[in-house]
Amino acid sequence: MSGEFGRIARYFAPLASAEALGLADDAALWTPPAGRQAVLTVDQMIEGVHFLPDDPADLVARKLMRRNLSDLAAMGARAEGYLLTTALRADTPETWLSAFAEGLAADQARFGLPLWGGDSSSTPGPVMTSITMIGSVEPGAALRRGGAVAGDALYVTGTIGDAVLGLHAARGEIADPTGHFRARRLLPEPRIGLALAGLVHAAIDVSDGLVQDLGHVCRASGCGAVIEADRVPLSPAARAAGPAWRETILTGGDDYELLIAAPAGSEHALRQACAGTPLTRIGHFVAGAPAVTAVDKDGRPVTLARTGWQHF
Amino acid sequence: MSGEFGRIARYFAPLASAEALGLADDAALWTPPAGRQAVLTVDQMIEGVHFLPDDPADLVARKLMRRNLSDLAAMGARAEGYLLTTALRADTPETWLSAFAEGLAADQARFGLPLWGGDSSSTPGPVMTSITMIGSVEPGAALRRGGAVAGDALYVTGTIGDAVLGLHAARGEIADPTGHFRARRLLPEPRIGLALAGLVHAAIDVSDGLVQDLGHVCRASGCGAVIEADRVPLSPAARAAGPAWRETILTGGDDYELLIAAPAGSEHALRQACAGTPLTRIGHFVAGAPAVTAVDKDGRPVTLARTGWQHF
Repeated sequence: MSGEFGRIARYFAPLASAEALGLADDAALWTPPAGRQAVLTVDQMIEGVHFLPDDPADLVARKLMRRNLSDLAAMGARAEGYLLTTALRADTPETWLSAFAEGLAADQARFGLPLWGGDSSSTPGPVMTSITMIGSVEPGAALRRGGAVAGDALYVTGTIGDAVLGLHAARGEIADPTGHFRARRLLPEPRIGLALAGLVHAAIDVSDGLVQDLGHVCRASGCGAVIEADRVPLSPAARAAGPAWRETILTGGDDYELLIAAPAGSEHALRQACAGTPLTRIGHFVAGAPAVTAVDKDGRPVTLARTGWQHF
Repeated sequence: MSGEFGRIARYFAPLASAEALGLADDAALWTPPAGRQAVLTVDQMIEGVHFLPDDPADLVARKLMRRNLSDLAAMGARAEGYLLTTALRADTPETWLSAFAEGLAADQARFGLPLWGGDSSSTPGPVMTSITMIGSVEPGAALRRGGAVAGDALYVTGTIGDAVLGLHAARGEIADPTGHFRARRLLPEPRIGLALAGLVHAAIDVSDGLVQDLGHVCRASGCGAVIEADRVPLSPAARAAGPAWRETILTGGDDYELLIAAPAGSEHALRQACAGTPLTRIGHFVAGAPAVTAVDKDGRPVTLARTGWQHF
């Protein structure tokens, strides 16, 4: 077998579970776990938009997987399986596809989820891939963006800004001697599996940028938020970049950390739920318009020229 | 609101159901109907590959919807909802997107299914869209490609070949005075809702071409098939095209009719189940290697230079 069907048999069939029906039928067949709700998300990665032409294909696959897993993490969901689309150019080398499939295999093993189906195509344009990821939650246990209330504390997992500094490093605009920024840009860590249900009022993953994604929470919740900019957790490398990069760090995207609104006084329980995952309190929610304010350690407003990433 | 979020609010939020959570969360939340299995499929449409740059955007949307519905039809599934991805160029006019959304709205109303979520992006390349469609079936009732046995009759719904003749018409290679070929290329009719469960041994939709898709059934079922070429149902326009187009008709794709394997003697029940949908017996399954043979009305083999459509 050659061509499209040969590629499917060689690279994708080994990744598939029983739900995929051998990748030889018109659709996948999944029996949802009894009594649970399904959580469904889709994300694209397009060459020149979400990844650079020279990015290793295995890491493109793993970042695509992890961006979707991060959406499930933000909903407090467990991953069940995924559908994949690929659109490759005639001159995309076979080695690109084999490395891409190796990346999928690596993260399927890491996160314990199988391929259920997909669609492959040719394209005259940039290489394009997408994943539709399906997860599940206990009924009513899904975390939402709305639900934050004035007085809630604002937390973030991990560190912020490394991924966007990795983009600037790829452009030669900032040094990256240890490769830390590059690693964070290429291989984010989705915060899947934290036991946040019942503990938090709202959650979102930081994909468009800390300020913008917090703005989404504010609009959905009908309140404002204050970020104490000096509390935002930075890696040693991001800290070493200095204050000139502060706005980039606060507004750059692609971190895939979780922003969490939780009632004051719940910090101990929250830290137990996040066992092993770094968690930093970086601000709080306030009554009023759904605006995000950043303040410095003296409480003075930090002015931001832009708030985050949008397509167009 | 402008840009990405403004477009989502203007064009897509009106199409969304409660499962979409206002298109303002990280994922959709769907409660699967108790006791049913989920059926999941995804299809892409890329400018220059699956549609022509001048194709009306509303019909691009509807064909995308219908290609996915056809996959559900081939599984005997009921449609529940869908996720949408779009990747538009900076110079894609706003009118393209508004027409695209109108097409989605028209077919949502026609087929009774809502938008649950999606992902929008920019792209430097061809416009790209995909739909992940979610359906459901009674446990064990899904139709499959495997299951045909020697002696089964082979049926097809509707007529074959109009869509591929529409592609040749778009290239000026065949006349299309009534626009019939164009209409069939741009707006296929998915055969959703036929009550085939328990009546048929196998089913598939004709997307890659009659011969190739029948080959998929043969490989999955472990038997061969014979097409009586002169029985293949043609529209008056396709019939008028003459014998020079026979191979194109038998091997061209994009028909989205159903190919069905059913036990001999079940024809009456099958016609009742397909009430209102044209159904033609065009051949039968035979023991042996999973090969597809076409024969003329005297039983002589019809030689085909190609079997169907593959990407790459």
